[in-house]
Amino acid sequence: MSGFEDADTEETLTCFQVTVYHPNQEHNQVFQTLRFFNRERLSSMEVIKFGRSPNLCHYTFQDKQVSRVQFSLQPFKQFNSSVLSFEIKNLSKKTSLLVGNIELGYLNKMDLPGRCIVRFGEYQFLMEKEDGESLEYFETRFVLAPRSLLEERHYGKPVPENGFSSSTLPTEMDENEY
Amino acid sequence: MSGFEDADTEETLTCFQVTVYHPNQEHNQVFQTLRFFNRERLSSMEVIKFGRSPNLCHYTFQDKQVSRVQFSLQPFKQFNSSVLSFEIKNLSKKTSLLVGNIELGYLNKMDLPGRCIVRFGEYQFLMEKEDGESLEYFETRFVLAPRSLLEERHYGKPVPENGFSSSTLPTEMDENEY
Repeated sequence: MSGFEDADTEETLTCFQVTVYHPNQEHNQVFQTLRFFNRERLSSMEVIKFGRSPNLCHYTFQDKQVSRVQFSLQPFKQFNSSVLSFEIKNLSKKTSLLVGNIELGYLNKMDLPGRCIVRFGEYQFLMEKEDGESLEYFETRFVLAPRSLLEERHYGKPVPENGFSSSTLPTEMDENEY
Repeated sequence: MSGFEDADTEETLTCFQVTVYHPNQEHNQVFQTLRFFNRERLSSMEVIKFGRSPNLCHYTFQDKQVSRVQFSLQPFKQFNSSVLSFEIKNLSKKTSLLVGNIELGYLNKMDLPGRCIVRFGEYQFLMEKEDGESLEYFETRFVLAPRSLLEERHYGKPVPENGFSSSTLPTEMDENEY
């Protein structure tokens, strides 16, 4: 699946896709403010914050256990690279952020690999980058996972072109399944 | 010179001091919006942008040659460190940023050493960090250099407690000297 184009330059956009999972996502609606499958175009100048506070964060979780700002994501360009990469920083004083098996304390940061699982508390995120041409803009896309990301062994394997093994995560899900 | 304290916690604040120089600083007033010697307390959640646009930047340069956003600075904590560090990112598409002798293109970033010279175009900045205890807040402080930072060999040498060799940069300068 190729990324959408920037209408001004006709360059394809890097797509940062986040597949989210929380064990109580059905009952507690912690992800109710996320617009699943919607692509949102953002400027590379931006730092995207995730957390509880709608005033401070671009993407919010409806959950008192979440910090007002939990973590931030921001694009950058590695030396000698022509595409965007992303840096993640833990902005929560009370909760560690796990990027793969690396634990980030308050204000620790790291560069994300192209595909990894990020966790805090009971929240799980599969973060996947699909490279595009534009440096000035990128887009985000959220997908809701039907089951824990940690139970799936498929996530460590190479994935087909659409970014998912069809047996693990459908790219379109029937709402009745939830 | 020890940093000021956070009034809430009585922790000392890390001071990020920026000594600025531009060859036409007297005539063109490119630094007129900077409040020299004022200490400003900022949250570690913030990303501080420098550039021409007052709408987008926290600190501005009055100069049409400067990009709307030239670069950003943001605090983080290195693994196994108890104090704040700072990351710099070049946000200008047209101008490189030199950190010491390392050239940062558009969206390139790097962690700043405790003391270094940053340049773009004819702008020169000596950036110096003085560690404090607080992680949640830090402070900035701007100083105007009377002459080019590149002419001074003293900058490579160890500095006395006040952060400057008195022969190169007075900590208080007489306005009549300009």
